[in-house]
Amino acid sequence: MAVAKEGDLLLLLGRDSKRFILRLSPGEELHTHRGFIKHDDLMGQPVGGQITSHLGYPFYLLRPSTHDLIMNIKRESQIIYPKESGYVLLKMSIVPGTRLIEAGTGSGALTIALAQAVMPAGKVYSYERREDMIDVATRNLSRLDLLPYVELKCRDIEEGFDEKEVEALFMDVREPDLYLSQVREALAEGGFFGALVPTANQVSALLRGLQSESFVDLEVSEILLRHYKTVPARLRPEDRMVAHTGYLVFARPVSEE
Amino acid sequence: MAVAKEGDLLLLLGRDSKRFILRLSPGEELHTHRGFIKHDDLMGQPVGGQITSHLGYPFYLLRPSTHDLIMNIKRESQIIYPKESGYVLLKMSIVPGTRLIEAGTGSGALTIALAQAVMPAGKVYSYERREDMIDVATRNLSRLDLLPYVELKCRDIEEGFDEKEVEALFMDVREPDLYLSQVREALAEGGFFGALVPTANQVSALLRGLQSESFVDLEVSEILLRHYKTVPARLRPEDRMVAHTGYLVFARPVSEE
Amino acid sequence: MAVAKEGDLLLLLGRDSKRFILRLSPGEELHTHRGFIKHDDLMGQPVGGQITSHLGYPFYLLRPSTHDLIMNIKRESQIIYPKESGYVLLKMSIVPGTRLIEAGTGSGALTIALAQAVMPAGKVYSYERREDMIDVATRNLSRLDLLPYVELKCRDIEEGFDEKEVEALFMDVREPDLYLSQVREALAEGGFFGALVPTANQVSALLRGLQSESFVDLEVSEILLRHYKTVPARLRPEDRMVAHTGYLVFARPVSEE
Amino acid sequence: MAVAKEGDLLLLLGRDSKRFILRLSPGEELHTHRGFIKHDDLMGQPVGGQITSHLGYPFYLLRPSTHDLIMNIKRESQIIYPKESGYVLLKMSIVPGTRLIEAGTGSGALTIALAQAVMPAGKVYSYERREDMIDVATRNLSRLDLLPYVELKCRDIEEGFDEKEVEALFMDVREPDLYLSQVREALAEGGFFGALVPTANQVSALLRGLQSESFVDLEVSEILLRHYKTVPARLRPEDRMVAHTGYLVFARPVSEE
Repeated sequence: MAVAKEGDLLLLLGRDSKRFILRLSPGEELHTHRGFIKHDDLMGQPVGGQITSHLGYPFYLLRPSTHDLIMNIKRESQIIYPKESGYVLLKMSIVPGTRLIEAGTGSGALTIALAQAVMPAGKVYSYERREDMIDVATRNLSRLDLLPYVELKCRDIEEGFDEKEVEALFMDVREPDLYLSQVREALAEGGFFGALVPTANQVSALLRGLQSESFVDLEVSEILLRHYKTVPARLRPEDRMVAHTGYLVFARPVSEE
Repeated sequence: MAVAKEGDLLLLLGRDSKRFILRLSPGEELHTHRGFIKHDDLMGQPVGGQITSHLGYPFYLLRPSTHDLIMNIKRESQIIYPKESGYVLLKMSIVPGTRLIEAGTGSGALTIALAQAVMPAGKVYSYERREDMIDVATRNLSRLDLLPYVELKCRDIEEGFDEKEVEALFMDVREPDLYLSQVREALAEGGFFGALVPTANQVSALLRGLQSESFVDLEVSEILLRHYKTVPARLRPEDRMVAHTGYLVFARPVSEE
Repeated sequence: MAVAKEGDLLLLLGRDSKRFILRLSPGEELHTHRGFIKHDDLMGQPVGGQITSHLGYPFYLLRPSTHDLIMNIKRESQIIYPKESGYVLLKMSIVPGTRLIEAGTGSGALTIALAQAVMPAGKVYSYERREDMIDVATRNLSRLDLLPYVELKCRDIEEGFDEKEVEALFMDVREPDLYLSQVREALAEGGFFGALVPTANQVSALLRGLQSESFVDLEVSEILLRHYKTVPARLRPEDRMVAHTGYLVFARPVSEE
Repeated sequence: MAVAKEGDLLLLLGRDSKRFILRLSPGEELHTHRGFIKHDDLMGQPVGGQITSHLGYPFYLLRPSTHDLIMNIKRESQIIYPKESGYVLLKMSIVPGTRLIEAGTGSGALTIALAQAVMPAGKVYSYERREDMIDVATRNLSRLDLLPYVELKCRDIEEGFDEKEVEALFMDVREPDLYLSQVREALAEGGFFGALVPTANQVSALLRGLQSESFVDLEVSEILLRHYKTVPARLRPEDRMVAHTGYLVFARPVSEE
């Protein structure tokens, strides 16, 4: 049975489903809504077991999933949710060893999914125009020890990308259709292009751009995730759900001659 | 610019969106609905470019995405679609290096996504009761060179799993609630449990079993994927869609003492 | 151009989309979040025009839709929403002149839709066990002048219905499967049966009951309504939506000999 | 117990859920996939009972619902489905006695729902440019005895509507935004406007038009209907569903001065 030890990334799950993610460090304390917990007291405790706060409130000691990590980051912007990022991984063949560009780092939610998918040999080159967002993403990725797999660049992508022949390129920026010539310079012929845009108008504009820049195999889709209450005798969906995050657009650049 | 060479896994995409996946081998031929293509004629051709069949019909020469591979396998059973398998990867932290069990290999659709996510250091132990399905899955995985990352076992999971302390275990079998004691023996305390079941009654039965076997952090969800027609001036969803594949159930086994 | 006059049922729509429904009565005042309005000042005002509160805040003067009436009632219980009640009208042929039973009046939301559909010649016999809910429904229907088309009965339907040979019968009660023999006594052979139940378990129980009581033409369905933001240059769905109200079940009682 | 008699509108429901709608007429025959049935043999038979074809195949003898009538019409065009038309009735207060305009009769599917909702005192003025569609709609409505409540007009609405001060106006035409001045001339100030358009681009264009023509209380929505298999022990949604019919747009014309 595994036990928690210094440097581990852990999830404390309260009985009320509240979640706390921490990196185990000697001398530190976690402050919860139900009392504090000393990191030192967690060391040596079995993963999958229970521990209690100084107020006696019980928490399960677990390892966080990628999903937990994404949903738990410090958010300074709208994030890309796991329902979309999981699909992106499969549509764009983002597997161990892949080198890809992400345009629009934001808080780094998708970056986490990408980094965990390509490590240890792959690399995510992630571009973001705003310095404050680079700082947020750096903190979020650093805490999860994912910085070795990510190269963050504070840059307006209008100026283009440094990399050539990357296998995949994903855009989460306001007007992705404006940067398709920059995309074509960085993305390998036949590579995987993806984008998330919130509005139908942006989808139309992006499709127009992709068609005029010789992208083929276009796909536009949206993903709806519906959660259920977990009461076996009264199984039913939750009353409310997220109705929209964005439209996913995928395409592949080809040579037409 | 990359060119196709012997041993490459390739996707030929017709103008009508028909897809053909092949492993480039000297002397072989691909027979399409629009004429045949000699593998030898593809060698040295640029990826992202066009080639034509002996009837002059044009195809784009691309590398297949994981999504393409999953949707293109020989199916002898209902498969798990990318809309679900992508989410499974993130909910169950299936990343490079993960050791996990899959119960119910079927045609191997989910196995492909799992193998590509854990390689090269990880391993998928995949159990299937039916020998004929093991054969189908073996062919599907072998063609994609994914067998090194998968250990297929023809076994009724009633008898239990060989592995201990695996990090994750996913079930796609008829009555997953019947095998939870076997699951608990194989899955590490605090590990990631997931299942897909087609009916609401099975969800209720599984939730009951999970609750009585000390699983926590239960989630039941369903994922709907809606495709759009890719006509920028007339953007609208496709007329019909897949309305149901299955309910996803996730949970984590804990020690209650 | 129509003008507002005593006795009219009116909708005041604020610039911020707040809605107030009133029956125009001399001497009364409407108190809004943006100041009060004297009913007397509304008399003679053109419908479709604007009026202002004593604080100068503008409101449009409109007639409420059935949808407005349903969404605006005083709610003491979960209501049946227009997305379902509209479909119920068509599935159960509830048209001018129809005589039907509603079991489970609740706050009277569905009763409003039914009464407006069957008036003036038809009748809704609406049963409700709780006296306090009868009071709520009476107030809601009375305010809309719909009581002439509804007969409210405070009764446990365990004791059966007074009517025979009604054309349609709709149930919104906790365990509709327990009352199917009472339903069969009241509903005409071949009539229209409908029910709304919140959980999948209740659907299964009701289907079992219907099949054993010789109901045919079974349908189970759910209706999802997704609203969009009405910004033409940034068209997109609202961020969140109602994910579940209930499952609709329809069937028709037949004679099997 | 009611019995079938001459002139009745009837539904024959086969064990395999095939549906046949007929108007009972002496001397006629219904030809089904399982043998023929003489109308004369149906007269006097109890509604809700069973009859058999000349090949001995059993059918239930029922009255059709409005839903059955809509789904069963002869279609020469895309129709508006009950999932939308029911909601339209409630959003636009289409009740017994309402006078309204429908622009774009098509095959008359929505016209059926409207006529049945407004009869006997109300009236549907339904405009259609194509003569062949007028013929189809006439036949569909005539068979259901709904022509007394509908006035069909073969006219390009570019030329305007004959009626003034109608309470509601619904458009199912290609570019509804082009006819908003005609709409404003026919629709009462403060009345109910509705439209169905298939594409997101049309929604944007219509919203722009409505906003510039002083319409308020805008709503854009889409309705998804998901059917379930009616097997109580294996409750689950059908595998496939209609993913899109159109976007509904509602608004109300007001006077801005």
